[in-house]
Amino acid sequence: NEVIANRAIQLMGGKMGTKKPIHPNDHVNLLQSTNDTFPSAMHMAVATQIQNHLIPSVRCLRDGLLEKSKEWKAIIKIGRTHLQDATPLTLGQEFSGYVHMLDDGMARIENALQGIYCLALGGTAVGTGMNTYPKFSEQACKKIAELTGLPFTTTPNAFAAQGAHDALVAMSGALRGLAVSLLKIANDIRLLASGPRSGLGELILPENEPGSSFMPGKVNPTQCEAMAMVATQVMGNDAAVGIAGAGGMLEMNVYKPLMINSLLQSIRILGDSCGNFDQYLVRGMQANERKIQTHLDNSLMLVTALSPALGYRKATAVAQYAHEHNTTLKAACQALGYLDEAQFDHLVDPKKMIGPSDS
Amino acid sequence: NEVIANRAIQLMGGKMGTKKPIHPNDHVNLLQSTNDTFPSAMHMAVATQIQNHLIPSVRCLRDGLLEKSKEWKAIIKIGRTHLQDATPLTLGQEFSGYVHMLDDGMARIENALQGIYCLALGGTAVGTGMNTYPKFSEQACKKIAELTGLPFTTTPNAFAAQGAHDALVAMSGALRGLAVSLLKIANDIRLLASGPRSGLGELILPENEPGSSFMPGKVNPTQCEAMAMVATQVMGNDAAVGIAGAGGMLEMNVYKPLMINSLLQSIRILGDSCGNFDQYLVRGMQANERKIQTHLDNSLMLVTALSPALGYRKATAVAQYAHEHNTTLKAACQALGYLDEAQFDHLVDPKKMIGPSDS
Amino acid sequence: NEVIANRAIQLMGGKMGTKKPIHPNDHVNLLQSTNDTFPSAMHMAVATQIQNHLIPSVRCLRDGLLEKSKEWKAIIKIGRTHLQDATPLTLGQEFSGYVHMLDDGMARIENALQGIYCLALGGTAVGTGMNTYPKFSEQACKKIAELTGLPFTTTPNAFAAQGAHDALVAMSGALRGLAVSLLKIANDIRLLASGPRSGLGELILPENEPGSSFMPGKVNPTQCEAMAMVATQVMGNDAAVGIAGAGGMLEMNVYKPLMINSLLQSIRILGDSCGNFDQYLVRGMQANERKIQTHLDNSLMLVTALSPALGYRKATAVAQYAHEHNTTLKAACQALGYLDEAQFDHLVDPKKMIGPSDS
Amino acid sequence: NEVIANRAIQLMGGKMGTKKPIHPNDHVNLLQSTNDTFPSAMHMAVATQIQNHLIPSVRCLRDGLLEKSKEWKAIIKIGRTHLQDATPLTLGQEFSGYVHMLDDGMARIENALQGIYCLALGGTAVGTGMNTYPKFSEQACKKIAELTGLPFTTTPNAFAAQGAHDALVAMSGALRGLAVSLLKIANDIRLLASGPRSGLGELILPENEPGSSFMPGKVNPTQCEAMAMVATQVMGNDAAVGIAGAGGMLEMNVYKPLMINSLLQSIRILGDSCGNFDQYLVRGMQANERKIQTHLDNSLMLVTALSPALGYRKATAVAQYAHEHNTTLKAACQALGYLDEAQFDHLVDPKKMIGPSDS
Repeated sequence: NEVIANRAIQLMGGKMGTKKPIHPNDHVNLLQSTNDTFPSAMHMAVATQIQNHLIPSVRCLRDGLLEKSKEWKAIIKIGRTHLQDATPLTLGQEFSGYVHMLDDGMARIENALQGIYCLALGGTAVGTGMNTYPKFSEQACKKIAELTGLPFTTTPNAFAAQGAHDALVAMSGALRGLAVSLLKIANDIRLLASGPRSGLGELILPENEPGSSFMPGKVNPTQCEAMAMVATQVMGNDAAVGIAGAGGMLEMNVYKPLMINSLLQSIRILGDSCGNFDQYLVRGMQANERKIQTHLDNSLMLVTALSPALGYRKATAVAQYAHEHNTTLKAACQALGYLDEAQFDHLVDPKKMIGPSDS
Repeated sequence: NEVIANRAIQLMGGKMGTKKPIHPNDHVNLLQSTNDTFPSAMHMAVATQIQNHLIPSVRCLRDGLLEKSKEWKAIIKIGRTHLQDATPLTLGQEFSGYVHMLDDGMARIENALQGIYCLALGGTAVGTGMNTYPKFSEQACKKIAELTGLPFTTTPNAFAAQGAHDALVAMSGALRGLAVSLLKIANDIRLLASGPRSGLGELILPENEPGSSFMPGKVNPTQCEAMAMVATQVMGNDAAVGIAGAGGMLEMNVYKPLMINSLLQSIRILGDSCGNFDQYLVRGMQANERKIQTHLDNSLMLVTALSPALGYRKATAVAQYAHEHNTTLKAACQALGYLDEAQFDHLVDPKKMIGPSDS
Repeated sequence: NEVIANRAIQLMGGKMGTKKPIHPNDHVNLLQSTNDTFPSAMHMAVATQIQNHLIPSVRCLRDGLLEKSKEWKAIIKIGRTHLQDATPLTLGQEFSGYVHMLDDGMARIENALQGIYCLALGGTAVGTGMNTYPKFSEQACKKIAELTGLPFTTTPNAFAAQGAHDALVAMSGALRGLAVSLLKIANDIRLLASGPRSGLGELILPENEPGSSFMPGKVNPTQCEAMAMVATQVMGNDAAVGIAGAGGMLEMNVYKPLMINSLLQSIRILGDSCGNFDQYLVRGMQANERKIQTHLDNSLMLVTALSPALGYRKATAVAQYAHEHNTTLKAACQALGYLDEAQFDHLVDPKKMIGPSDS
Repeated sequence: NEVIANRAIQLMGGKMGTKKPIHPNDHVNLLQSTNDTFPSAMHMAVATQIQNHLIPSVRCLRDGLLEKSKEWKAIIKIGRTHLQDATPLTLGQEFSGYVHMLDDGMARIENALQGIYCLALGGTAVGTGMNTYPKFSEQACKKIAELTGLPFTTTPNAFAAQGAHDALVAMSGALRGLAVSLLKIANDIRLLASGPRSGLGELILPENEPGSSFMPGKVNPTQCEAMAMVATQVMGNDAAVGIAGAGGMLEMNVYKPLMINSLLQSIRILGDSCGNFDQYLVRGMQANERKIQTHLDNSLMLVTALSPALGYRKATAVAQYAHEHNTTLKAACQALGYLDEAQFDHLVDPKKMIGPSDS
């Protein structure tokens, strides 16, 4: 207040420090309270950081994953449920799931922004708007909307907006949701890239850094690990924001510094890591088609394709035989006299197993 | 499967246990996997419980609070920020904040329901829909929508819907948001009802149970306490659901039993406690107008009404004088020679302090 | 109180319901308050359930893991850091880590029990002990210690023990610590058992249930998954207990029902799942020595054994050559002319790589 | 490594950058891996920060609270349970509970330090200690103990110490426990200091900052609010550390940066805020004896002192009469003819109600 008053005095030709003709409390502060301006500033900071930093970064990552999904649409691989071999799908299908998760995550954040666009401005000390002009809130929010290009409006109820900060809690929850998705994606990729010799090895990660100096040749999934840490931090921040959000007492919630610090950190690190994840990992990732094909050929799980033709009992027998004799399903079918090679190849075609039946 | 097969056999005149003409695996189970049916069942359970139990209960509580907000619209009371006396507002305004918080909370839950209405049904084992008919998913979801009266549809991406359960995580976050609001409301009410002699005492709670047998005359805010526990449990459940939601591996998330158990518990206890809170607390709550008026008369905080007329420095002096001499603002104004009684009463009218200035 | 009074009246030859000669409030309840008895009962329930159920179950699991650690002490396998191949260790060493984690976890729970053994009994309504005999607390705790065989004593400060429940929060933290350990162990085992054909496949899990009816031959790591859910639930419960523990107000914390419910659930499910994990998983687990040996032979990471002899630069070259030509380290050494087969076998002896150097 | 090598080369008279006679990888790095040194450094940082910063600050606060507890040992005040008036205690007794809570909290942190003193040093890449001298770990830890003056030793099992970070999770839990205590203490003080006119007003806080410029005369409990935020942040950090601690995979947990960042932040902000809370709040706090006495005189809860003499039924009647007629217990006793003034004063002596009965 003092700074603004002195500058105004200066502009009006007065003497700084005299508090005349502009008094820091009587004039500058006349209509304002931190109780409505602080929450308004929090909402503005969150909205602009999400629009300018987070959403563009998530969209980049989403586009990077979509590109891979398209690139890999013909690579058929073994599926895994319970970390156990399952029926096949394409690598492109697998990655289409990640694209979809990010699309949904962004939509949830956009939804949560609707509450953020409502500003407490004009509520002054306890939400009544005492000492303001009746149209102050509306006009100020309109001006802010103009300046930011974002649809800020006056909150429909300043008592709720100052006594609680539920819109920020909801945003924290939406960011937590995105973090949960990203943690799953990062964990999947680091699992698929495990190796180089004794892991799943279906993905090859770009070498951004030299690996362990102790173990030459090794490339660590550093982007996945950084993303996992970011996601976990966001989950912890969300826990803190939830507790803080419940801590309002009567006309005020005093946890504002904690809430805005946690939220802006979450937004920043999610945005940064999505950008890095896209640039340094996803764009340079390659499918290890040789390894993927080996897993598919060795798998016993294509047996499900035999079930409609042979019935559950015989199909089970084939799988058991192959399992016990450490051989392939095809060899097992022949050994058991159920199918010859041509019949087997006709029935067990992975290309037919990556979608609903045609007939 | 065995049960369904036997019943079908029975209906078709066969012998139960023979697996003919209906085989539990070959026929009953032919198209299905728990991997798509379990998530679909989770979504259906969550959606119906929210629509049938939670939303109606929250709406009851919201209506109960709205009624009080209207009933108390003329009761002017001291506001409190930082748990310190602040400028006044009406008790009705205070409660209007709670109404608004619940309105927003319900809207967020409705938003989260949009994701719940998308079913994985037809994705079968890994999301590809292998072994289903191409239109199975669409037709099954349509039938479910008819039977439930809720707008269930096929998920746009079964890989996301089976490898992750982000829609459930989002719903958990929305429930957490409601819990945060309810915890604040319950804490406010129990604080306002503290007493009977040595607390704030502005609200009088209905006596539902006899109080402590050790301290006759005392009535405990049991509904507020129950609500606080429910809200805290929901916050803990949400933490677990978040961790679980991030725990999907490749084509499956195996935390389904934990997630659905936590969510259904949260929905149930939130619904139950909102209903009870409304019925046994809000509806019977009374304003202690005598105490409210005493607080208002004694308060130094109406001094803000003097600030525009006297200026910040003099207004501060009045408050300081009253504070040091343990007297009222009116007496202080007179003692300091700033205002006579009529001037004071004209300036310091609480009715003028509960909204923006008229001029 | 009424029930006890009537039974006492009966024993004394009086008429039940007359409240004479024993009055339920005047006599039975004379010295007591739920404010000290409820926390005491919580402590007693927690201590006995931990001693009788949880600790024995964790010890069983710990012994089961120790047995495997000994059984597998000579099986050398590839180590993995960052989910990437690393220098070798024995399967027994790997499992010795799990044994040690559980030993530490039990020690932390035993430590937390010291606070649980302190009872608020005798504090009556607000911790002052008003209306009790001066020695009531001491004598009652002594009697409880006799009856339970556990070292219960009077709390040194009943104000702390009734206004807060920090000892229960600390116990919740200790249980969370155990849950964190168990989640890591369960995840490791399910990863090592991934397969049967397209995973790491180093462990073979016992088949307790028939696998997926849709995919014959597949065995799911159900015990690991159950343990992961239990651990996650305990983490969520701990979050709730922490919030509840901070929610005490002045002379009382009213979150007692939530706290004891969460704690007893955590104790029960941890105990149950440790017992099941031991019985249905650990005891029947087998090492897949063939797969383990294959991983070891193929690995490039034994190259670290070459580093002291060849130097970092050449060792790196060997690993690079093997990596690029998809061959073994031995072949690479020969092709590069660094070492012949005998020299290689002498230097690269996994048995020498599972501990500090002898010289 | 490069820096250390060059400095060694320089000391030995060589040419920097030549990697001779000291090679950064062959010599400097020979025995080391970040996999054992990073966890060791984390333990060392946590232990020293706790010993040098946190514990001294908590002890200061504990001493400050103890001083107040002694200073206020004769001030009898109304107790409050369920935020409702209860039997009396002294303000000193109330604060003795806080002293005790901090004593216990420090003891729990000291306990958790025992695990922190165990270092993974010497485990090298996967815990086997490959490439180290057999006595390296022992000797290095001994040297570290000498240099730091803290009892660091070699971990009994490096596989556990590198694959998991359970000791850090346990420390996080102990810090969370302290945070929970501090949150309760801060909330109690801010509640007792609520006012100045329309709150409980039993404590007077020192004015460190000018209050709200909008509401002259008001002093906000800023230290309590800062402490509440710190405690909440520590609870959020603990949630993140718990998830991170469970995220170890096989021979390594990669969440180390997140864990140490969260822990050091928690330690720092807890230490800072305990110091500030003591210096700027506790030391300057004053009891508002006038207000405390008023609450005591008005209270109906001294009726419990009548229960042994009058019986439960009559005592209840006295309280009811006083409640309904808005009068004191003494007047009610007289009006109902139960006791005269002298009898009442003899029976209802708050000094007799703050401990067990003498007889």
